[in-house]
Amino acid sequence: MNKGLLLILSGPSGSGKDTVLDSLARITPIKRSVSMTTREKRDNEANNIDYIFVDRTYFEKCIKNEDVLEYVEYSGNYYGTPKGPIDKWLSEGMNVILKIEVHGAESIKKIYPDAISVFITPPSFKVLEKRLRNRNSDSEEDILKRLKTAEYEMTQATKFDYLVINDQLEDAVNNLNTIINAERLKTFRIINKISEVEENA
Amino acid sequence: MNKGLLLILSGPSGSGKDTVLDSLARITPIKRSVSMTTREKRDNEANNIDYIFVDRTYFEKCIKNEDVLEYVEYSGNYYGTPKGPIDKWLSEGMNVILKIEVHGAESIKKIYPDAISVFITPPSFKVLEKRLRNRNSDSEEDILKRLKTAEYEMTQATKFDYLVINDQLEDAVNNLNTIINAERLKTFRIINKISEVEENA
Repeated sequence: MNKGLLLILSGPSGSGKDTVLDSLARITPIKRSVSMTTREKRDNEANNIDYIFVDRTYFEKCIKNEDVLEYVEYSGNYYGTPKGPIDKWLSEGMNVILKIEVHGAESIKKIYPDAISVFITPPSFKVLEKRLRNRNSDSEEDILKRLKTAEYEMTQATKFDYLVINDQLEDAVNNLNTIINAERLKTFRIINKISEVEENA
Repeated sequence: MNKGLLLILSGPSGSGKDTVLDSLARITPIKRSVSMTTREKRDNEANNIDYIFVDRTYFEKCIKNEDVLEYVEYSGNYYGTPKGPIDKWLSEGMNVILKIEVHGAESIKKIYPDAISVFITPPSFKVLEKRLRNRNSDSEEDILKRLKTAEYEMTQATKFDYLVINDQLEDAVNNLNTIINAERLKTFRIINKISEVEENA
C-alpha cells in the first residue's frame, strides 16, 4: 500500500482554513489532525474532536518521547500536535491535513520531508478585515492585532509549495482537492505501480 | 501575466500519448509542440500540424542558432523540436505540452528548469502488446522491438515527476488535467498573486 499524503495547511487567521477543510471533507476522504491540550474541556467541546484532552503528566511524557510534533505552553496549559495519529493514518494510506501556524510549517517539513505545504490567503486585506469583523467575537484590539500578524504572515507565503486564494469558497476547495489528487500522482509516491506494470508482463 | 506551464510527456510507444492529448485538448486549452523536419510532406499530412516542413538550410540555421531543443538525423532527414513557438506560448501564459522520447526529457529540463515531466504508461505489458498489435501497422519484428524498448523505458519512469497509468482513457486524461491545474497553483509560478493580495490592502 502507498503511504498517505501529509498536507500542511497554513494561512492568516480569517483566511478560511476551517471552512475550506469542512467543505473538502465532504468531497474527499481526509483525516484532520486534532490538537492535544491540558486545559479543561468546555461544555460545548467534544474530546478527540475539538481537542484531545489529557493531563499534564501524559502531555509531558509525550514531549519526552517526541510524540508531540510541536507544542506551546499558554496561560499555564500545553497545546500541541500529537504525532501518533498522523503516523498511523499515513501508514494506512490516508490523506492527512495538519492545520498549523505559519511559522510552524517548516519544522514539520523537517520531520516529514514528503509533506507538502499549502498557504491559504484571503483575496485581499480588505476582505480579511471584513471577515474578522463579521465574526463578532473579537475585540477591536484583537482584530487589529490579527491584521498586523496577517501582514507578516503574507511575507512567509513564498516558503510554501502551493498558494490557494480563498475568494470563492468552492474554487478554494476544488483547488485544494486538485493539489491532493495531483500530489498522489507524484512518481515517488506510487513507485510500486511501476513494478506492477512490469510484473503484469 | 504568469508564464505558462511546460509539461514534458513521455512514455513507451503504445502508451496512448496522442490519444490522451487529443482528449485533453478538448477539455482544457493546451498548446502542443509540433516537430520540425526536412523530409518530404506526405499527401495526408498538413504543414504546421503534423510537422513543420522546412529545408535543410533553414534547419541547420536553427541548429546553429540554438533554436532547436533537440534533433536527430534519420534516413538523411532532420527531425527536431523548435524552441521559438514554445518560448512564445509560455510567455503568453499558455500550457505547453512537449511530447518527447523518454531519454530526451532530462535535457529539456536543463533548458526549462520549471518544466514538469510526466511519464505515461499502459497498465501492463500485456495491454501494451495488444495495443501495438491492434494498430495493424507494424511488422512482428517492429512490435517485438517496441516491446523491448518499452521494457527499458519503464526503468526510466522514476526520473519523471508524475506517473499516469493509461488504463481507462478518461481517468488518464483527468489525471493529466489535474496535474496541470495543481502545478499552476505552485507558489513560485503565481508569486505575483501575493503582492496582489497585499496591494489590495
